[in-house]
Amino acid sequence: MLSEPLESLPSGYEITSLFSPRSIAVVGVSQERKNAGQGMLLSLLKFGYKGALYAVGLHGGQISGIEIYRSILDISGPVDYVICCIPADATLKFMKDCVRKGVGAVHIFASGFSESGNAKGRRLERKLVDIARSGGVRVLGPNCLGIFSPREGMTFYDTTAPFLIRSGAVGFFCQSGGNTRELIETGTVRGIHFSKGVSYGNGSDLSESDFLQFFARDEETKVIGGYIEGVKNGRNFFETLQGIASIKPTIIFKGGQTRAGKLAAATHTGSLSGTAHIWEVVCRQSGAMLVNDLDEMMDLMLVFSYLGREKTGRKVGIVSVSGGRSVQCADIWEKEGFSIPHFPLEVQRELHLFTPEVGTSTRNPLDAYVVFWDASLFSRALKVLSEYRGIDYLIIDVSIILSLTGIQGGGAESLRAQIEAIVHLSEQGFKRLIVVLPFEGVLDTMKLGFELEQRLIGAGIPVYPTMLRAASALKRFVGYCENGSS
Amino acid sequence: MLSEPLESLPSGYEITSLFSPRSIAVVGVSQERKNAGQGMLLSLLKFGYKGALYAVGLHGGQISGIEIYRSILDISGPVDYVICCIPADATLKFMKDCVRKGVGAVHIFASGFSESGNAKGRRLERKLVDIARSGGVRVLGPNCLGIFSPREGMTFYDTTAPFLIRSGAVGFFCQSGGNTRELIETGTVRGIHFSKGVSYGNGSDLSESDFLQFFARDEETKVIGGYIEGVKNGRNFFETLQGIASIKPTIIFKGGQTRAGKLAAATHTGSLSGTAHIWEVVCRQSGAMLVNDLDEMMDLMLVFSYLGREKTGRKVGIVSVSGGRSVQCADIWEKEGFSIPHFPLEVQRELHLFTPEVGTSTRNPLDAYVVFWDASLFSRALKVLSEYRGIDYLIIDVSIILSLTGIQGGGAESLRAQIEAIVHLSEQGFKRLIVVLPFEGVLDTMKLGFELEQRLIGAGIPVYPTMLRAASALKRFVGYCENGSS
Repeated sequence: MLSEPLESLPSGYEITSLFSPRSIAVVGVSQERKNAGQGMLLSLLKFGYKGALYAVGLHGGQISGIEIYRSILDISGPVDYVICCIPADATLKFMKDCVRKGVGAVHIFASGFSESGNAKGRRLERKLVDIARSGGVRVLGPNCLGIFSPREGMTFYDTTAPFLIRSGAVGFFCQSGGNTRELIETGTVRGIHFSKGVSYGNGSDLSESDFLQFFARDEETKVIGGYIEGVKNGRNFFETLQGIASIKPTIIFKGGQTRAGKLAAATHTGSLSGTAHIWEVVCRQSGAMLVNDLDEMMDLMLVFSYLGREKTGRKVGIVSVSGGRSVQCADIWEKEGFSIPHFPLEVQRELHLFTPEVGTSTRNPLDAYVVFWDASLFSRALKVLSEYRGIDYLIIDVSIILSLTGIQGGGAESLRAQIEAIVHLSEQGFKRLIVVLPFEGVLDTMKLGFELEQRLIGAGIPVYPTMLRAASALKRFVGYCENGSS
Repeated sequence: MLSEPLESLPSGYEITSLFSPRSIAVVGVSQERKNAGQGMLLSLLKFGYKGALYAVGLHGGQISGIEIYRSILDISGPVDYVICCIPADATLKFMKDCVRKGVGAVHIFASGFSESGNAKGRRLERKLVDIARSGGVRVLGPNCLGIFSPREGMTFYDTTAPFLIRSGAVGFFCQSGGNTRELIETGTVRGIHFSKGVSYGNGSDLSESDFLQFFARDEETKVIGGYIEGVKNGRNFFETLQGIASIKPTIIFKGGQTRAGKLAAATHTGSLSGTAHIWEVVCRQSGAMLVNDLDEMMDLMLVFSYLGREKTGRKVGIVSVSGGRSVQCADIWEKEGFSIPHFPLEVQRELHLFTPEVGTSTRNPLDAYVVFWDASLFSRALKVLSEYRGIDYLIIDVSIILSLTGIQGGGAESLRAQIEAIVHLSEQGFKRLIVVLPFEGVLDTMKLGFELEQRLIGAGIPVYPTMLRAASALKRFVGYCENGSS
């Protein structure tokens, strides 16, 4: 079923080597100075790149046991992929060397090309691509960070969260290096695991359509995200999107939607942005999901990574820790198009076997403060609700602040027990579960929040920082599942 | 100027004693058991309540050196305010004692009244109020937490952030106890300081109109926030709001806007919620600001607490750490109705004296990665922009993640120096400043983020977790200042 629409797409075979090169040469490496090349090389070593790794730098020397060649032509083995960290002015001459060397693809880190907005920069970029193409070399960039691939040990930076990074099912292409790093850092902490990602900057040669096609074919990738400032060939991209978005969930964040944003995009990646309206229409028609910022993109990546798409619906049961939050939850979910059906009397009666009449609402939301500080009651309540067939999802609203500061609250231990009860429910096979866990606060609150969030994520349960973001994400998810071809 | 519109309002004098009682009796205190009464009493002691503090409990005894009387009638001195933590069933008899004792007001903590949805609860609440009123006693609640007043040392719980709590200019009335605690906890961490606050639950006697009038007159309170599920006397409340909202910024968060939300509100505080549309109209007409959640309420409280209202406008200058973020920032601010004017050539020239041509945009947003890891350059850039008269606000986008993981980034020390440069700018008198500082991430990122945020707040600079929330808040702020009477 997957093969048919993809057969009609232009081939993207060259890119495969981009994401799994057998050898990498980092160019512009200084032995002494902490420059970009040195940073790239050391990051690759640390991240565990397993292929042949070479360093090239004007002044030679060696670093971390790796010899620094003075020219790429001095490397005797084949070079699949080059990470080029030399200034823009020097790239033309270097690209000629790459052609002579017969490398597969060159990632150009430097800026100073078409995004600079002057004729010189545009000319330089055109020449660079001309030289590369004439010699059969593909160009990634310029003005970008390059490839991220945990499985291959490919990276362009030292993450703050190395202990959380593992290979996963989310692929992305991102025109901004900053957004790429934010996506990886924040996404990883939230439990989004990436197959491959690419920061592609000006997209002078390889660009959004190529990556989209690659991710469509890549078996490791189940969800695709793209941050785009402007497309090089609109028709090609939109046709590609049309063929892909209904097969693999594809999330598009379009930068440069306003006059000011467009101008900023022009100076950032030399992109002509197109109108916001066109993007809305294209995404609606193709089934791609257009989002407004990186957070929303991650919210969708999360729900598509964690929830099964076989059985969905718009009826939610809500468990909340306070009356005020219950009211807000109900408002939010209904506004997002969900129904919050009253639990039938037999369910309510079962809940009332262990919750007091006073201070408890068993209708839906279940607002039973008492169960929040008694994990065995909480567990029992979850069991009752998970067995009720009248809801499609169970939404659990955990408030660290309310639990910690409650007059009768049990504090951190009680919260941990609550989280274990949720994990237990999931382990018993109930997977239609979303937890909302805000953890703004003082350091201890954040620390506890981080611990609880990681525990839930580790057990395969998606966690959202606000009720609104959970509801918006589930709304898009259910909408996609209902209309998508899968 | 303040006095005229307020003269026409019904008097709210009784409530003054509610927020600054000379004596408090906590009723329902156990010597042994950690019950609500004991919690309330100990919290008051810890928070430093300075007036006469009495404890009352069926079994007598003593706690923390305070004698537990068996009846409120055993207390010899006058009692201004009672915090009553006994079960609903026992409150009628107790209220009669309060009348005999001649107390000023009684806060009823217990639930089990009209919010229970049955005739018994409604009858109980009516009787309670009848007894109180006939004896000249005011009732706060039932089904609520009561009064919070840092200046008086009044509280109902142990905050997780005692070291951050100080008295300020924001007053609130809140129908939900949970929302009250969230507002205090999260608000305090964000640098919102409260004058007085009240959680008033079912609002059987004292309710939203009384509190609104109180805050309008209270000199300590400069900004008012209210979370309301339903009003007891709509006309009265709306007329009060009409007279107040244009004088003091008044932020209203309405719970129970949807069918599901209304039902939840009915079981939470026994409230009839009214339609969402009515609230929109009433707020628009009165000049009150209607918000959708607590975060938005705090975002507005923050901007009204920190920015001067004398000179506003819709032209922003933006300093951002990455090109991708610059594009998003520009999009966001323009969508919110601001303009991001290009800096004139002489400003750009001045910036280019110390920023490279390549990899920098000096137009607006200023996207100059280089200045973000050299505090002296950063400081110089801020000075140039703050001296340019063509912008009303300077928005500084600080990304911890991008600074920590940047290949050429300087890490935590560089970030701290950046923040000091911003603080310095503010200390030099430039106050039209907003910092956006997201700090999701691993523990170290959050820790650093918390430190930087508190440093900025301490210097009187408002900080927002996302660009969108900053822009939305400033939009409402500028709109209010333009239309408000002040």
